[in-house]
Amino acid sequence: MSQTSNRVDVGIVGGGPAGLMTALLLKRRGISAAVVERRSHGEIRRTQRAGILEAPTVDMLVEAEVGSRVLTDGHEHEGTVLSFDGVQHRIDFQELVGRSVWLYPQNEVFHDLATAWEREGGQIHWSVQEVGVHGVDSDQPSITFLDAQGQAGRIEADLIVGADGSRSMCRRLIPEDVRTDYFTTYPFAWFGILCDAPPTAPELIYANSEVGFALISQRNESVQRMYFQCDPETKPADWSDAAIFDHIQQVLGGPDAVNLKRGPIIEKTVLPFRSYVCDPMTFGRLVLAGDAGHTVPPTGAKGLNLAFSDVRALVPRVEEFLTGLRQAAEAEADAPASTAPLERYSRTTLDRVWKAQNFSYWATNLLHRQPGENEFAQRRRRGEFDAITGSVHGQAYFADSYTGWSAPSPN
Amino acid sequence: MSQTSNRVDVGIVGGGPAGLMTALLLKRRGISAAVVERRSHGEIRRTQRAGILEAPTVDMLVEAEVGSRVLTDGHEHEGTVLSFDGVQHRIDFQELVGRSVWLYPQNEVFHDLATAWEREGGQIHWSVQEVGVHGVDSDQPSITFLDAQGQAGRIEADLIVGADGSRSMCRRLIPEDVRTDYFTTYPFAWFGILCDAPPTAPELIYANSEVGFALISQRNESVQRMYFQCDPETKPADWSDAAIFDHIQQVLGGPDAVNLKRGPIIEKTVLPFRSYVCDPMTFGRLVLAGDAGHTVPPTGAKGLNLAFSDVRALVPRVEEFLTGLRQAAEAEADAPASTAPLERYSRTTLDRVWKAQNFSYWATNLLHRQPGENEFAQRRRRGEFDAITGSVHGQAYFADSYTGWSAPSPN
Repeated sequence: MSQTSNRVDVGIVGGGPAGLMTALLLKRRGISAAVVERRSHGEIRRTQRAGILEAPTVDMLVEAEVGSRVLTDGHEHEGTVLSFDGVQHRIDFQELVGRSVWLYPQNEVFHDLATAWEREGGQIHWSVQEVGVHGVDSDQPSITFLDAQGQAGRIEADLIVGADGSRSMCRRLIPEDVRTDYFTTYPFAWFGILCDAPPTAPELIYANSEVGFALISQRNESVQRMYFQCDPETKPADWSDAAIFDHIQQVLGGPDAVNLKRGPIIEKTVLPFRSYVCDPMTFGRLVLAGDAGHTVPPTGAKGLNLAFSDVRALVPRVEEFLTGLRQAAEAEADAPASTAPLERYSRTTLDRVWKAQNFSYWATNLLHRQPGENEFAQRRRRGEFDAITGSVHGQAYFADSYTGWSAPSPN
Repeated sequence: MSQTSNRVDVGIVGGGPAGLMTALLLKRRGISAAVVERRSHGEIRRTQRAGILEAPTVDMLVEAEVGSRVLTDGHEHEGTVLSFDGVQHRIDFQELVGRSVWLYPQNEVFHDLATAWEREGGQIHWSVQEVGVHGVDSDQPSITFLDAQGQAGRIEADLIVGADGSRSMCRRLIPEDVRTDYFTTYPFAWFGILCDAPPTAPELIYANSEVGFALISQRNESVQRMYFQCDPETKPADWSDAAIFDHIQQVLGGPDAVNLKRGPIIEKTVLPFRSYVCDPMTFGRLVLAGDAGHTVPPTGAKGLNLAFSDVRALVPRVEEFLTGLRQAAEAEADAPASTAPLERYSRTTLDRVWKAQNFSYWATNLLHRQPGENEFAQRRRRGEFDAITGSVHGQAYFADSYTGWSAPSPN
């Protein structure tokens, strides 16, 4: 890999799933890309992240030719369970909307993408520091950085993709007078654990109760992922292992409702909850993709899926933009290249982002208790739960949203 | 009508739609009832009230043999229109869930019921004062009152139905240590007008915009009903006719979106917004029906329909209770009559009440702006609007709720 200046079609800031998927799909269209990432491959792979993939997300992994681990190691879930005060209702995705989701951890998605990109000789710079993005309002944007050995590097490109996550530096390059930052906060967080135990249930259980929310998820045959609602100021050490399991068991309605499988806890983390959207997601020669453009609370399992739907919408628009650029150059036109395809990407993808923001917000409010809320609020929530689980139309509305609405339009 | 003490099976406090429908359907089962009402027939009939009837509500009017005006003068609506920032989407109830609703004003429903009850010689005391309900925790409950001529009257019954509206005196007879009052308030009200103008559109239009909510409803060929969101402290005189129409036109997205029909305004009122549920809806020899047990904000058009679904659930349980009472008397049993059927009514009807409370709350939040909310809130609401209107499952969820969920169970 070059440590010195080099030129590609597209420079990508961020080597997570959004950045790597963009790089791979651009390559499939003959467009060259280079990626810089502040963390190491190993560090990202070791960071446990949720893993519910919508069908189009799985399709994109297959389409990007990153191998079939998602199909062999992932688990198809044809439904999920909603629990309220200890009473469970299964939502049958297949029967309701003819779609499934796949359980496959996000850090494994990352590993598959990174492995494929490196195997194909894709340019990627791990563990870089002092990343700078320059000239997005010119026709010669570039990325500068110090590589893992401390050597200065530079990538010149026609377009920069900012896929640098929820604390994105790139989005701050969109001037404040053209950018609207939409955000909201929540008065709780998720306490997440990994534990050595077999699955408690074959599908995910989303549970609400008088003492709040819990999610019984899975990882594999011997390691389980679980979460419960906590105060945002909670520290991982505040909860003993026994207290954690007792609490989650209570949320589930006791062992007669769901018999929680317990085991040694091997990781404890507190996940913050917030919603954020950056509008527009493009400025000059910069476009944003994934968490750099939007953050959703984890309740709706939308984060990674939304990042991939960004990439799905973005890649054809990048090709269109670059084609226009080449044609303008050949015609020796004086006018600057049209960024209209990038603006179209921003508008299109934001419509989907807001549907996902709404679902994540709504599912969060359906499943969590708010500190200090009155009795009407929780009893009303039970009415909403009954409206969702008690009618095929309510179930289908939930299933359609959870599994990702209708199929994306082809391009 | 007797001005002195008299004995019936059921005494009913409140001569609005809930009380009168209860009286008529009890009579159809051979159960005698007497009704007391503080207002006059004319005063109730002149009080303009909303009028969207679910199909089972229409069926009950037919079943109660009150005449066919609902079918000849009412208008079947096979759908409704949702508008957001001037863009309209029609929700086709018939296509989505195979049901319609009927536009027929609530004060006309009242008039039909009152006329039928009086024509059949049903006992009713209008314009009474100083109504008292006694002995609901004994086996000899009674109602006392002063009639329109100031004469003392008394009704002795086996059971009292409290159908005395949202400021119910009856519900306060349920002791505080067994009663939970659930309530919530909203930071806005509805400004309602009646005006001499033909219909603006063939179906109702529920509109959200940057300046808040409006509803374009109808009354008949020459008189229209419209509402818009206002501050709860607003007085009817605060708005001129021209300002009202200009504002509603703005909510609709301008005359190119929907050309509002204007005309002389003949009534202005401000409708308060709140949600309330009383649980349980029974105590001893007292049961509540309609607004006495629950109040919903008007957005979901659920008030009258919920009152009638109470009555539908209540009447067979009253018959069951009275049959048990007679059998116990014949057997000369010492044990008090079982009130279990009445408690079953309370539980059953409250499940539906909370689904309706949720729908009313949700539709209110979908369609109104909250004073002081941040930009995320309104943009998220637009995402929810797109999720509802943009998928058949979202549309069906709305249509199913608006038209009254699945058919009520027969009894």
